Amino acid sequence: MGLVNHVFSEESLKKLHVSNLGIGHTRYSTSGNSALENCQPFVVETLHGKIAVAHNGELVNAAQLKRKVMRHGVGLSTSSDSELITQLLAFTPPLEEDHTADWIARIRNLMNETPTSYSLLVMHDDVIYAIRDPYGNRPLCIGRLIPVNNEGRGKRSAETEGWVVSSESCSFLSIGAEYYREVLPGEIVKISRDGVQTLDIVPRTNGDPSAFCIFEYVYFARPDSIFEGQMVYSVRRRCGQQLAIEAPVEADLVSTVPESATPAALGYAEKCGLQYVEVLCKNRYVGRTFIQPNMRLRQLGVAKKFGVLSDNFVGKRVVLIDDSIVRGNTISPIIKLLRDSGAKEVHVRVASPPIKYPCYMGINIPTKEELIANKPEFNDLAGYIGADSVVYLSVEGLTSAVREGIKAFKDEQNGINGKTRSTSHGHCTACLTGEYPVELEW
Amino acid sequence: MGLVNHVFSEESLKKLHVSNLGIGHTRYSTSGNSALENCQPFVVETLHGKIAVAHNGELVNAAQLKRKVMRHGVGLSTSSDSELITQLLAFTPPLEEDHTADWIARIRNLMNETPTSYSLLVMHDDVIYAIRDPYGNRPLCIGRLIPVNNEGRGKRSAETEGWVVSSESCSFLSIGAEYYREVLPGEIVKISRDGVQTLDIVPRTNGDPSAFCIFEYVYFARPDSIFEGQMVYSVRRRCGQQLAIEAPVEADLVSTVPESATPAALGYAEKCGLQYVEVLCKNRYVGRTFIQPNMRLRQLGVAKKFGVLSDNFVGKRVVLIDDSIVRGNTISPIIKLLRDSGAKEVHVRVASPPIKYPCYMGINIPTKEELIANKPEFNDLAGYIGADSVVYLSVEGLTSAVREGIKAFKDEQNGINGKTRSTSHGHCTACLTGEYPVELEW
Amino acid sequence: MGLVNHVFSEESLKKLHVSNLGIGHTRYSTSGNSALENCQPFVVETLHGKIAVAHNGELVNAAQLKRKVMRHGVGLSTSSDSELITQLLAFTPPLEEDHTADWIARIRNLMNETPTSYSLLVMHDDVIYAIRDPYGNRPLCIGRLIPVNNEGRGKRSAETEGWVVSSESCSFLSIGAEYYREVLPGEIVKISRDGVQTLDIVPRTNGDPSAFCIFEYVYFARPDSIFEGQMVYSVRRRCGQQLAIEAPVEADLVSTVPESATPAALGYAEKCGLQYVEVLCKNRYVGRTFIQPNMRLRQLGVAKKFGVLSDNFVGKRVVLIDDSIVRGNTISPIIKLLRDSGAKEVHVRVASPPIKYPCYMGINIPTKEELIANKPEFNDLAGYIGADSVVYLSVEGLTSAVREGIKAFKDEQNGINGKTRSTSHGHCTACLTGEYPVELEW
Amino acid sequence: MGLVNHVFSEESLKKLHVSNLGIGHTRYSTSGNSALENCQPFVVETLHGKIAVAHNGELVNAAQLKRKVMRHGVGLSTSSDSELITQLLAFTPPLEEDHTADWIARIRNLMNETPTSYSLLVMHDDVIYAIRDPYGNRPLCIGRLIPVNNEGRGKRSAETEGWVVSSESCSFLSIGAEYYREVLPGEIVKISRDGVQTLDIVPRTNGDPSAFCIFEYVYFARPDSIFEGQMVYSVRRRCGQQLAIEAPVEADLVSTVPESATPAALGYAEKCGLQYVEVLCKNRYVGRTFIQPNMRLRQLGVAKKFGVLSDNFVGKRVVLIDDSIVRGNTISPIIKLLRDSGAKEVHVRVASPPIKYPCYMGINIPTKEELIANKPEFNDLAGYIGADSVVYLSVEGLTSAVREGIKAFKDEQNGINGKTRSTSHGHCTACLTGEYPVELEW
Repeated sequence: MGLVNHVFSEESLKKLHVSNLGIGHTRYSTSGNSALENCQPFVVETLHGKIAVAHNGELVNAAQLKRKVMRHGVGLSTSSDSELITQLLAFTPPLEEDHTADWIARIRNLMNETPTSYSLLVMHDDVIYAIRDPYGNRPLCIGRLIPVNNEGRGKRSAETEGWVVSSESCSFLSIGAEYYREVLPGEIVKISRDGVQTLDIVPRTNGDPSAFCIFEYVYFARPDSIFEGQMVYSVRRRCGQQLAIEAPVEADLVSTVPESATPAALGYAEKCGLQYVEVLCKNRYVGRTFIQPNMRLRQLGVAKKFGVLSDNFVGKRVVLIDDSIVRGNTISPIIKLLRDSGAKEVHVRVASPPIKYPCYMGINIPTKEELIANKPEFNDLAGYIGADSVVYLSVEGLTSAVREGIKAFKDEQNGINGKTRSTSHGHCTACLTGEYPVELEW
Repeated sequence: MGLVNHVFSEESLKKLHVSNLGIGHTRYSTSGNSALENCQPFVVETLHGKIAVAHNGELVNAAQLKRKVMRHGVGLSTSSDSELITQLLAFTPPLEEDHTADWIARIRNLMNETPTSYSLLVMHDDVIYAIRDPYGNRPLCIGRLIPVNNEGRGKRSAETEGWVVSSESCSFLSIGAEYYREVLPGEIVKISRDGVQTLDIVPRTNGDPSAFCIFEYVYFARPDSIFEGQMVYSVRRRCGQQLAIEAPVEADLVSTVPESATPAALGYAEKCGLQYVEVLCKNRYVGRTFIQPNMRLRQLGVAKKFGVLSDNFVGKRVVLIDDSIVRGNTISPIIKLLRDSGAKEVHVRVASPPIKYPCYMGINIPTKEELIANKPEFNDLAGYIGADSVVYLSVEGLTSAVREGIKAFKDEQNGINGKTRSTSHGHCTACLTGEYPVELEW
Repeated sequence: MGLVNHVFSEESLKKLHVSNLGIGHTRYSTSGNSALENCQPFVVETLHGKIAVAHNGELVNAAQLKRKVMRHGVGLSTSSDSELITQLLAFTPPLEEDHTADWIARIRNLMNETPTSYSLLVMHDDVIYAIRDPYGNRPLCIGRLIPVNNEGRGKRSAETEGWVVSSESCSFLSIGAEYYREVLPGEIVKISRDGVQTLDIVPRTNGDPSAFCIFEYVYFARPDSIFEGQMVYSVRRRCGQQLAIEAPVEADLVSTVPESATPAALGYAEKCGLQYVEVLCKNRYVGRTFIQPNMRLRQLGVAKKFGVLSDNFVGKRVVLIDDSIVRGNTISPIIKLLRDSGAKEVHVRVASPPIKYPCYMGINIPTKEELIANKPEFNDLAGYIGADSVVYLSVEGLTSAVREGIKAFKDEQNGINGKTRSTSHGHCTACLTGEYPVELEW
Repeated sequence: MGLVNHVFSEESLKKLHVSNLGIGHTRYSTSGNSALENCQPFVVETLHGKIAVAHNGELVNAAQLKRKVMRHGVGLSTSSDSELITQLLAFTPPLEEDHTADWIARIRNLMNETPTSYSLLVMHDDVIYAIRDPYGNRPLCIGRLIPVNNEGRGKRSAETEGWVVSSESCSFLSIGAEYYREVLPGEIVKISRDGVQTLDIVPRTNGDPSAFCIFEYVYFARPDSIFEGQMVYSVRRRCGQQLAIEAPVEADLVSTVPESATPAALGYAEKCGLQYVEVLCKNRYVGRTFIQPNMRLRQLGVAKKFGVLSDNFVGKRVVLIDDSIVRGNTISPIIKLLRDSGAKEVHVRVASPPIKYPCYMGINIPTKEELIANKPEFNDLAGYIGADSVVYLSVEGLTSAVREGIKAFKDEQNGINGKTRSTSHGHCTACLTGEYPVELEW
């Protein structure tokens, strides 16, 4: 329990045995309590040896599966849907002792039992299986460890020292690995001494395209991560450019709510020809912000988080780009801060569409009632947050900003022989549109 | 993890909901690692609701049961045999959802699956089941909570405020309860709002007498605990008296290795007519003793643990009573301490027989090789430990010291109508004699 | 801050440099707050190098001294009177840089400034000074480290490996040292590579005898410690014998409130010819006892601390020896416990006189109002605590029990040539009699 | 000890009494060990009551002062020069008890004893004194707390709720205060219920101008802080503009080593007309970086700290702005990272001059030997760090960037009646030029 840096101290790492494979997990709990028992990976002993399971995602049919597992006579010790996956892998037939353990059959069976969402790592013996559900809802990608003395600049080394799997490719660089490829929706990948091998690609039952979570681009992923062949930063910059087309404004300068909105702000400034200027600086040492019951305290909380660079905007009309406005609690004290420090006008432009619907596939979104887009105040949002104007990016604008990069990647891929992989790249936009890619059942 | 006083701080206790029933467990791990995951009680969700299980003991057929549970398809998350009990209770038939949960049938089934050793508490809904295995190998007893304003002196209050169950009766007094009775070997007791009710008494399959661990009397139990109708202190004093008969010695005074050997020392002194004197005082603030690689450090370790009351024995011949000599590491520096401080002679008398065999029923005994009784040095033990003489109590002496009190208790019981309960009181002396009460199988 | 075992963990000890001398201090704060800043030893840098000071005791003229030091222009950073000692040592003349630092003069000057109570260790450069105030109010003694391979039994080794100084001699054994001698009242001892050397003995100004705290014998000291040539245990046993003479009682057995009253109980039993029996056993694992606002909770607190060995006393008349009754809160639930468990009569005999007056010399005694001896209930103490009778030892009884051993020691010393040291052994009995050995001034 | 957020938890803050004044200190130790005893504020009791002292800076004549204080007979308990200040305030004459405590005289006397560097807060009774040394070497400024319901936008409220003093003005906003003014070099300010009052302004003895540390602008201060009437961010942007004039380069884009170099990078891009683009993104969750003994590990350390936004610069010529290159260890792995990810050229421009000399006034600069500017590698720095070119800003460039803003501020001040304060604004550039503003003596 706790931050990776605290849990995996130098001392605790020294105690680990040197070995050839391993899996880990950092959990920001969405389903199941934040309790020690829910920490992953789940390790259980089965008749055919130990397995360890790490799971990113949330099973849409968890309640139904839970009854099924308990009906079989298993006592469940946690509230986590990841334990269900582990027990399903343990009791999937064949269970006779005289049979060999057919892990592939077990994994396929699991994928029949639950449609989405899961990106999984299953470790058994000297093999790691990397699995992505048929919807491809959660990301998963593979990296290649490059040998130590590689001094090559800008070109790939021929040798491979090992393989790593991660939800986000941004983690590869810091351990000396480079991005290799995504695990495809429905793909079962086996990683062993023999390298990376595709065992199967399980399609969605109805043949529909995959449904990758579009919110990873907007909010969750690090800007240097690669999904579907493109860098997240580039998508965000295109969102800013698209926003400049959809919602231009007469102003003196464009700025950002640092740091997440900066790519969109640079894209906006670039497209509309206004100067990009910093109006806020982030206080690196700010700690937890407690819940603040009134405007005065929220104001101080924001002023603790950001410093104001008033000399840069006194008397000016500011276009302030934010990446998303979810509850609407943070943006209004920021606007007040800028006005109190001398901004003449503050126009807010949001580089994503409003969130209106809950997510059942692993993203922790506030309840419908808490979402500003479902509140009466949304009708006069500019007045409510104290802005001179406020405009969100359209869903179509977001989708086209995402697809533009995928198209470019596919075109490039098609030009290169051998490496093309055909998947229809659909996206889950349920939180924005209410169109869920899977039937929800309890 | 940790001491009860640290884990259950005032703050953590405040967070508990006020409720009517609960179970707890303090574990000194004998089988299974000392890991957080092995902490008890085990709580699992089953088709028929949550159960919580606390287990004292060690299953003699744990390995066989483990295979059985895993063959059923259950992934086991701990190395504890107590998890086996919990999963056996979860999947015991009937498992159909349309059937009611027959917990008694499940408990009986569990008792068929494993002979010994277990004293169990199973909490489900608003009921606690207290179960003792047919061998009665581990203790379990029931106490009665007396209402608050009870001012009665020396007689029982008619009212009952609640019920408590414990391995040792010594715990009752400190929570305002009084000893009620033992759970009998093989008994399934149901404790609910309706009071204490015997559901069944499952006998040993072959009709043999029970096999209560005799070492509880010798070493583990607190002296104020009651087993089989007698106080442990009284057994220990009779052991000392018996030892005086078996192994008298011409000396000036009798003393003890405090505190555990004191009842035996007082019994010895009483029987042989010598004066009882303290030669050592315990240092209450001594912390952990680290493993000490040589005689000099062991000597200092003992001198840190005990102060020497040299004025009490300078120039005297000392009979030193110890409760047991297991490895022989502690007694020799004590003897040296006494001699260095002026004792003329030191005769050691041990108030229990030598331990020679391992225990598979929950007692953490050193390996056969570590036991002093299995070493060549045992042939000249007095010389090895630096004593003028050393004698152990005989197995028969110990057994008769134990049985004398049971007989007295039964006689008293038979004189009182209604309360007599017929159980043949046998004892497990396997660690002393190698005669195990159950066939050991793996 | 905290227990020695926690603060000086193996890890923290490993970080210490190996060296030839050092001082330490465990503080149970009596004057000054229990704050980190008051932890000893105090280490300050002076014009003539660093000094470290450890102080046991409490300065009777602390307030006056504090003003004096501050008037000199020193800002005081703690509330501890030990800091006053340290600053007095730093600024005592001569202060000229061209003079050498005359530490002896500084120590003598300090002893002129404050009469009592202090036992001090002052470390400077490669010397440790051990100093006891002219009243000898707090104990201080010297031990001799014996070389490692010493196998001598019962006789002193000729060689010396080093020297240790302690408030209580009981600590010597556990570090491989043996008792050498006391530091005398008013003595300044220098310990260096050249061994132990008496620099001066500063007498009480009026030539009165020393005033060693008699309560060390009664309550504070460990029974195996040696003061004024006698073992504390022996004094306590003689107190019990004296008590049997002063306050006999017709009863069946004598017992103790373990563990501190045991020597007195054995002495009492011995003298009056009754059997010594244990009626209570101490629970070793009991933690902190919180303040208990009512009788019911105090009763449970005592029942948590002690187990009751009822079989040993059911239907019997018990003489219960306690070492002291200060507030009277603990003894009554113990008596109730014994009665509830079957004692026929409970007669309390206290092996020390009642405490009536505050201590200003380092002993943490409750306020006058809290002392049971100053309350109206004292007139019918037996009724108040629920005993059949209660008698304290007389002040004369205590004094004679103490002096008997000193006389024996002196006689023995006088028989041996060379080692006799003439000090008149007076004692401070202020808390019992109100006769303070020093004028109290603020 | 520890981070402010850990030390001042909600719980610890609750324990503080509500009061009207207080001082605090966060210490990044430069002189004196990082030990608990050196934590500030220093609180001592003096003859005239308690004083608490917080000190930012380092006394250039600490060694000399220390001897002086000890010669007076004070034992010093810490290695901190701040304790010297505290003791000097305690013993400064007049010390006679019948005199009142003249704190102003004491402060003036302190300022005579030591020239620089110190910004001080001294709390006594219900007054806080804010003091800046005559050189004005360390910053100190005053803020005004604005009443709660202030809704005024962009203009000052007439009312004042209280006063705050800080080294950096950036802290004011987050507690609801606004910047009021700087404490002037040599100024003694008294803050009490009566408001802010200048007691004296002590000039440099020789009438030279003040010597504010220029490195506060370059490196230490937060960009939103105000010194000498100008925002630090603006100085840094002007440094970037100046650097574009001094060291232009033919390239495709300008970027920053985030976040400290961003103002300079935007200034550089603005002045030379190249596009500003992000090439690195900071990983917010990176913890401590351990010392990395070789290039490979340093490379991974940098790759853990920064993500690479390769899509933004593949095939491009990059001008990378850094705020300073001190040791040269960080910049080379960054350059390698950019080249490995596809940068065609990497030109480094440093927005400050090379550091060559140690600081004795409170700034923790590496030893002369560690500074890259003093190493042979400095002659071919571009080759050493792997850049295509590298140029530092000139000292004159830095100075003019700083003075430009002061001049603008003074012009503005002079236009406003009453508020002009005459101080000649000199700067300490000793670490860059070796010209120390004060004679260094030990």
